[in-house]
Amino acid sequence: MVAAHNLHKTPESAKFDLLAYLKERQKLCETALDNAIPMRYPDKIYESMRYSLLAGGKRLRPILCLATCEMTGGTIEMAMPTACALEMIHTMSLIHDDLPAMDNDDYRRGKLTNHKVYGEDIAILAGDGLLAFAFEHVAISTQNVPTERVLQVIARLGRALGAAGLVGGQVVDLESEGKPDISLETLNFIHNHKTAALLEACVACGGVLTGVSSEDLQRLSRYAQNIGLAFQIIDDILDITATQEQLGKTAGKDQKANKVTYPKLWGLEESRSKAEELIEAACVELDSFGEKAKPLIAIAQYIINRDR
Amino acid sequence: MVAAHNLHKTPESAKFDLLAYLKERQKLCETALDNAIPMRYPDKIYESMRYSLLAGGKRLRPILCLATCEMTGGTIEMAMPTACALEMIHTMSLIHDDLPAMDNDDYRRGKLTNHKVYGEDIAILAGDGLLAFAFEHVAISTQNVPTERVLQVIARLGRALGAAGLVGGQVVDLESEGKPDISLETLNFIHNHKTAALLEACVACGGVLTGVSSEDLQRLSRYAQNIGLAFQIIDDILDITATQEQLGKTAGKDQKANKVTYPKLWGLEESRSKAEELIEAACVELDSFGEKAKPLIAIAQYIINRDR
Repeated sequence: MVAAHNLHKTPESAKFDLLAYLKERQKLCETALDNAIPMRYPDKIYESMRYSLLAGGKRLRPILCLATCEMTGGTIEMAMPTACALEMIHTMSLIHDDLPAMDNDDYRRGKLTNHKVYGEDIAILAGDGLLAFAFEHVAISTQNVPTERVLQVIARLGRALGAAGLVGGQVVDLESEGKPDISLETLNFIHNHKTAALLEACVACGGVLTGVSSEDLQRLSRYAQNIGLAFQIIDDILDITATQEQLGKTAGKDQKANKVTYPKLWGLEESRSKAEELIEAACVELDSFGEKAKPLIAIAQYIINRDR
Repeated sequence: MVAAHNLHKTPESAKFDLLAYLKERQKLCETALDNAIPMRYPDKIYESMRYSLLAGGKRLRPILCLATCEMTGGTIEMAMPTACALEMIHTMSLIHDDLPAMDNDDYRRGKLTNHKVYGEDIAILAGDGLLAFAFEHVAISTQNVPTERVLQVIARLGRALGAAGLVGGQVVDLESEGKPDISLETLNFIHNHKTAALLEACVACGGVLTGVSSEDLQRLSRYAQNIGLAFQIIDDILDITATQEQLGKTAGKDQKANKVTYPKLWGLEESRSKAEELIEAACVELDSFGEKAKPLIAIAQYIINRDR
């Protein structure tokens, strides 16, 4: 089904080179992030924030935001502060999730986690600092966008991160630890909040910045919710099938922790096919954007074909 | 000097009843905070956020914000979302500062600290959730204020909280632990960032909401910086002279930790007189606001006369 949709959208003559696109956008994001938080006194906290923020990663969240802004008629410049803020929020959530009091992880993106290098106290503060700066950055650096749209972006960022988003998902995830009988409903709640909410914010904010209609905003949200859930299913699959080297983080953690995952509920094959269905459904939401939707469609398909 | 200024500003006929004023404003803030974060699923995180947010306290920060907004021609309604956000940020900083990896405190405002009740993982997340919601709340709930002013408020909140504010101050404080020879410059850096930056944001945001001139904004900032430093000097004095019951938190902590404090550098008497000078200098900044400055002048004087 995915292949058919792909064929329908991209005739050979207009094939979209996703890898070149991602590479170029990653570089733009790296530069913007590097410039957004330069070194200052007190060095230790800036070093710690930059250590995690500039540790590589796919930069999928900022790229989704930039791509949606462009697809809906905006520019990269309009969206870059929001894109950077999304990556700062994502990074902050990783730093805090890795802490000994939470998931207690030693490696992330192939490097020691923040608290292993800087200590728990600094890691907690680095997360807080990134979070605070994310909002300041959007408020100060967004150019050529009406201020009421910038406020809407800030509201969405806060919501995606807080108890109604990431934080809420992490709480239910922690509560579910060591419970091998949690329901599909609870599992969906966790991932809709831990993963999909921020991905949805990436895409929705890209559209808010250009002032899309509420119908289009709903389409964008459905696209993002679908790829968000597919992303998590693939994450669960990779935790079983990939090596630590491929992942850049500890592999097989879910199994060791006896965690309920999609492959555990559905099996590997069925999980993979559900992820493919979700990606197909996501792409259908973008039909009305025509050719301009190519990058977002290619990114959706990349999500289920990635190996880390 | 303070008494002289007080006399000059408030003839007997127009005496300002600060205690009644504080009590009334505290109640308004309590109600607004209670309504801002109602209980929802997942219960545990909302309970934990509300446990610390509604644990009493002087509500000095939101009251300063409301008072400045009113003094400069605005209303309580205009400033209440910002006032609540300031208290959420303050509460979040207390929750994270109390963690075992930081100051490791068991009591705060006479109650067990957040992590002692909910665990470290939930306490970290409750802080993150309060922080995220603070920004969302300002963006969504501020009424009858031009959007560009709301953005300025958000930028100031982020700055006061991040590595250029609270977080930066806490980092230098942690680095200075157990070093009995830190300089007055470093001590001032710590407190200008840990305490004064957020107090300055309270007062400045109150003025930003009403669109005061940049001269007035500078006056307001100087008022706040002065009361901020005085507040910290008094805090240091109280750590020596007050009991745990009075403070609602562990007393004598600074001495036990061999921390450099103002009384240690200057002695108790000299510290007290410096605090009084700072309060006097703060009040002079408000001269141009005339009678309307009464609440802010009374609050400044309250700071050096408080016993907790």
